[in-house]
Amino acid sequence: MKVAIYGATGYTGVELLRLLQNHPKVKVSALISQSQAGKRLRDVFPFFYGELGNLTLTEEPKEDYEVAFLCLPHEGSLELVPKLLEEGKKVIDLSGAYRLKDPSLYPHYYSFEHKHPELLEKAVYGLPEIYRERIKGASLIANPGCYPTSVLLAIYPLLKEGIKIEKIVITSLSGVSGAGRKPVQHFHFPEMFGDFFAYSLEKHRHVPEMEGVIKDLYGINVPLRFSPIVVPTSRGMLSSVSVFCEKIEPRELYMETYREEPFVKVASEPPHTKWVVGTNLCFVYPLWDHRVGCLQVVSVIDNLGKGASSQAIQNFNLMMGFEETIGLNLSLNFP
Amino acid sequence: MKVAIYGATGYTGVELLRLLQNHPKVKVSALISQSQAGKRLRDVFPFFYGELGNLTLTEEPKEDYEVAFLCLPHEGSLELVPKLLEEGKKVIDLSGAYRLKDPSLYPHYYSFEHKHPELLEKAVYGLPEIYRERIKGASLIANPGCYPTSVLLAIYPLLKEGIKIEKIVITSLSGVSGAGRKPVQHFHFPEMFGDFFAYSLEKHRHVPEMEGVIKDLYGINVPLRFSPIVVPTSRGMLSSVSVFCEKIEPRELYMETYREEPFVKVASEPPHTKWVVGTNLCFVYPLWDHRVGCLQVVSVIDNLGKGASSQAIQNFNLMMGFEETIGLNLSLNFP
Amino acid sequence: MKVAIYGATGYTGVELLRLLQNHPKVKVSALISQSQAGKRLRDVFPFFYGELGNLTLTEEPKEDYEVAFLCLPHEGSLELVPKLLEEGKKVIDLSGAYRLKDPSLYPHYYSFEHKHPELLEKAVYGLPEIYRERIKGASLIANPGCYPTSVLLAIYPLLKEGIKIEKIVITSLSGVSGAGRKPVQHFHFPEMFGDFFAYSLEKHRHVPEMEGVIKDLYGINVPLRFSPIVVPTSRGMLSSVSVFCEKIEPRELYMETYREEPFVKVASEPPHTKWVVGTNLCFVYPLWDHRVGCLQVVSVIDNLGKGASSQAIQNFNLMMGFEETIGLNLSLNFP
Amino acid sequence: MKVAIYGATGYTGVELLRLLQNHPKVKVSALISQSQAGKRLRDVFPFFYGELGNLTLTEEPKEDYEVAFLCLPHEGSLELVPKLLEEGKKVIDLSGAYRLKDPSLYPHYYSFEHKHPELLEKAVYGLPEIYRERIKGASLIANPGCYPTSVLLAIYPLLKEGIKIEKIVITSLSGVSGAGRKPVQHFHFPEMFGDFFAYSLEKHRHVPEMEGVIKDLYGINVPLRFSPIVVPTSRGMLSSVSVFCEKIEPRELYMETYREEPFVKVASEPPHTKWVVGTNLCFVYPLWDHRVGCLQVVSVIDNLGKGASSQAIQNFNLMMGFEETIGLNLSLNFP
Repeated sequence: MKVAIYGATGYTGVELLRLLQNHPKVKVSALISQSQAGKRLRDVFPFFYGELGNLTLTEEPKEDYEVAFLCLPHEGSLELVPKLLEEGKKVIDLSGAYRLKDPSLYPHYYSFEHKHPELLEKAVYGLPEIYRERIKGASLIANPGCYPTSVLLAIYPLLKEGIKIEKIVITSLSGVSGAGRKPVQHFHFPEMFGDFFAYSLEKHRHVPEMEGVIKDLYGINVPLRFSPIVVPTSRGMLSSVSVFCEKIEPRELYMETYREEPFVKVASEPPHTKWVVGTNLCFVYPLWDHRVGCLQVVSVIDNLGKGASSQAIQNFNLMMGFEETIGLNLSLNFP
Repeated sequence: MKVAIYGATGYTGVELLRLLQNHPKVKVSALISQSQAGKRLRDVFPFFYGELGNLTLTEEPKEDYEVAFLCLPHEGSLELVPKLLEEGKKVIDLSGAYRLKDPSLYPHYYSFEHKHPELLEKAVYGLPEIYRERIKGASLIANPGCYPTSVLLAIYPLLKEGIKIEKIVITSLSGVSGAGRKPVQHFHFPEMFGDFFAYSLEKHRHVPEMEGVIKDLYGINVPLRFSPIVVPTSRGMLSSVSVFCEKIEPRELYMETYREEPFVKVASEPPHTKWVVGTNLCFVYPLWDHRVGCLQVVSVIDNLGKGASSQAIQNFNLMMGFEETIGLNLSLNFP
Repeated sequence: MKVAIYGATGYTGVELLRLLQNHPKVKVSALISQSQAGKRLRDVFPFFYGELGNLTLTEEPKEDYEVAFLCLPHEGSLELVPKLLEEGKKVIDLSGAYRLKDPSLYPHYYSFEHKHPELLEKAVYGLPEIYRERIKGASLIANPGCYPTSVLLAIYPLLKEGIKIEKIVITSLSGVSGAGRKPVQHFHFPEMFGDFFAYSLEKHRHVPEMEGVIKDLYGINVPLRFSPIVVPTSRGMLSSVSVFCEKIEPRELYMETYREEPFVKVASEPPHTKWVVGTNLCFVYPLWDHRVGCLQVVSVIDNLGKGASSQAIQNFNLMMGFEETIGLNLSLNFP
Repeated sequence: MKVAIYGATGYTGVELLRLLQNHPKVKVSALISQSQAGKRLRDVFPFFYGELGNLTLTEEPKEDYEVAFLCLPHEGSLELVPKLLEEGKKVIDLSGAYRLKDPSLYPHYYSFEHKHPELLEKAVYGLPEIYRERIKGASLIANPGCYPTSVLLAIYPLLKEGIKIEKIVITSLSGVSGAGRKPVQHFHFPEMFGDFFAYSLEKHRHVPEMEGVIKDLYGINVPLRFSPIVVPTSRGMLSSVSVFCEKIEPRELYMETYREEPFVKVASEPPHTKWVVGTNLCFVYPLWDHRVGCLQVVSVIDNLGKGASSQAIQNFNLMMGFEETIGLNLSLNFP
């Protein structure tokens, strides 16, 4: 099956290529890049020394294909998605352009009017552990953000079970690759080396995304206190989620919820990000704090893996009717 | 003034030495180390190439001195403190052995019976921004833990002002040096490199320490949800503190509280740990979250600086009647 | 084909397991570990969450197998190899116990008398680009050291072509994983973080290993000046090799030598270690320095990949008559 | 004494500020920055929270001063130096614009014609251990490059003693801060994290600088084989220098040469970069390789310290007749 990658030279694009080159059902037929068009992939990334590396980056696809992966800025996806859908393509959009159901949130959180609100309803939020059946029939997938993936998998058992929730307080840590490939001062190596800091404490695009899913599943608004922090490594994401809710025995509930899931594991000790870097895995670790009377959950993912590109492939497999795990049998580097 | 360092070869000991060698009022006259006794300091740490480096580590002090800094395990401090006080020394203890007022907490949190409960009352908790006057008259200082320093400075304006608090949720990040100098598997460089993880989510010694200070200042128990995380750098600590409390305008309150403080600064953007590494500084950044209705505060310190050794010197200066800031005019490496 | 891994919990053992679990011809039937015997693999390394993770570590193999991979200390391999060969096993030894042809070098470089000198002749040095044919018929492979792999691939075109060499000066950089998994003070994360240093400048075990291969191919002794340096990352190795030799046009010679090699690539710019981490690749970059009149070559490998475990699998494939590249189609994490 | 810093917001500028704010003889009276003019220093770098932080960056000095430190691009220094000298200022130039004595080398190595060749003779190369007396009387100091500082201190005892040298092969490692503050793709944190690579293997500006000093001291040309490598940390530089020369007992010679030097220490084991980061120190470690018949020297400095800004202050102290070490009593962070 032929696929096209739009925005092939960003980090999520390269990660998709890394994974798709070993996917038995996929042939990458187009690498779209405005900034690098005309070069071969290996000229930009010499480590793609094999066949895929000889493919030339272009401004437009040169041949037909079935599925488009969009690794574009939000605004780029916003415009391109309707065109591709009209052409009959299936689309997996890794941006935030189609993740929110309520178009009125876009001006505040994304600084643009959403011009295709009808597609927001059509778009399926691509978190397979929650929306697997909808994904199977979708033509447009809004691939989840990295923070929402880590947080929603940490609390989904509660939502599924209808546990009564009062408050949720989240502090999430991300490696720097989550900020994208464009060089900026704060992420210049000598400055980021050994540094860590919080950011976007008042307003972050992923907050309405998480709240939207909670409302969809749960019926009510649960405003989230969300504090993201950048830590000095490239990949990895950890969410520390404190939930004030009715008392539960979480371990059993979590084991039960994720028993059949190929990519979500309930850990028996607080998980390390190094257990998941390079994979599509998520480890969750829940415990009930008897002193304070709340649930504490820690989850870890690879922000470029389950938080972006490998999750996009999981969605692709589901959409296309392939086995959900093909191409995702990924091992990690230890150490 | 002659001082002795007990446990001179651990990280807090070395940091003390680094700072004391430039302190105009101090002469380090004894370096106590059981494991390295008989060696010169420069044989263990070749970067102490100057006069101090020629000092020999010994099992016991060889000459009289006035103040002892204890950089020992909790159990070591527990036993040594009464002896030193009897000898008429002033003691600054960097362990947790005398930090809690309630002796009944020690078996659960420290795994030992406290044999000197009378000294718990006598010990002054060495956080100058809260207990400056008491410190001036103390003969035994319980130098605060790193997490408590970062958290208590983040919420002290609320406590001082008597703001009504309902819940406090804390996630704190620490560089690896906080775990001490003894090599262990998790902190072996190849394994910790690029990794981050939560630990001690159910029980951490710093929780009763923080709760004790809050109760002392505030009169009531506020159980804390506390989640510590290790991040892959050597130094630096960041606490993300969410406080559900009556509505306030935090910036003014924080500016007012810390106006005269030489070492606590109210930042106008979320602070970076790199702004404080190597110094005795703490930056705090408070904001009111209008959506959720809570206060969010972020604070940063150097876990070995304001979180340990430079704070010990601040306490020393206060105890001895020196100017509070001498020897603490520290600059940081940027980048 | 059933294989046993001796020393399964060290870094080269874990890396072998990571790769073998996706090797289509291999079933790992025994994980031998003295220190962890009795535990399941996943109890030690929770990221082995799949089938392999359920295998129990044992002190001895419980069922028959065909090939043994030895990830043991030199002394352990020294003793075990003769026993396994007698039992009819094929052996791939990742230690240095059988790498030198001259037994008289062992006391000086390895601090032991070699008790099985007859096996030194029988052992085949497992660098496929040089000794491919011998490897195919071997029953005992001495898998090369990481430094020798990077250096010998950097100069092999000269040796093959019989270029007249006067002097070779080598400075090699290694990530910390090359020092093994046992925690030690220098490699405790807070101390190694941001540090780099040279070591073993006078005597390093890999020097006679490299000189032995050069002599075997070249007929004469070329004493090597070799300076190894540890740099603060986990994986990756770079050798900077300066060869004073008769004048050549190196690019053509190197391209010609490695044209058919699946795992050695001639780079068109100085290669990055990040191009090879997690793979079995080696990039070499040669240039003639006209000012000084010498050849400068830079090579990069993953010290745990082509420098150890993936090279062991390449040797395994050759020994067993499988296609040389199976199980080695490895992609790297970028960034 | 009033000083001006031109280019105050680059890494060498900030490092100068860090050190000068504690220099007892200096008042920084002008911070010149084209890109940040109009802002206060603390607006750009919030960690300058003290008095110096309130100083406003300007395009030109607003008041008179005596000494200018130039932390500018080569071209900027080239033009500015003659103007400042005419105004009667003393100038310490941290760029390469006045480091070479032979103007004909500039087009090849710096891509510009040198328009002030008469000043090349006047400029004193600011390596105090070699040119101390000349520095004392200078009005223009060409502050050395970081690589030349580390290499020249590693071989100066040979040059001073007139040891007969045949060849010198150098591989030098540098932290990323040596590449400056401007964000570029290769040094974007996620890409540089865990990476290391050689660069400028054929032509590097520091080669004629080193060869020039050797010729000046030694009378003959010794072409240098020089291979620089970037390693994934912020600060630190290590040079591995192999010298083929007449046989010597190096330790005694090195001890003798540097006995009185306050900032150069002869190490008794291979030195770590972490021993010098943040200081003006250089550790050298020489050994004679009896097998190969050559001298191997390893030296370490902080590329921003002895390799740039603290060396500039050492030169300043000498020029102004102050004690050489004032303001340079710097301690390092360990760990």
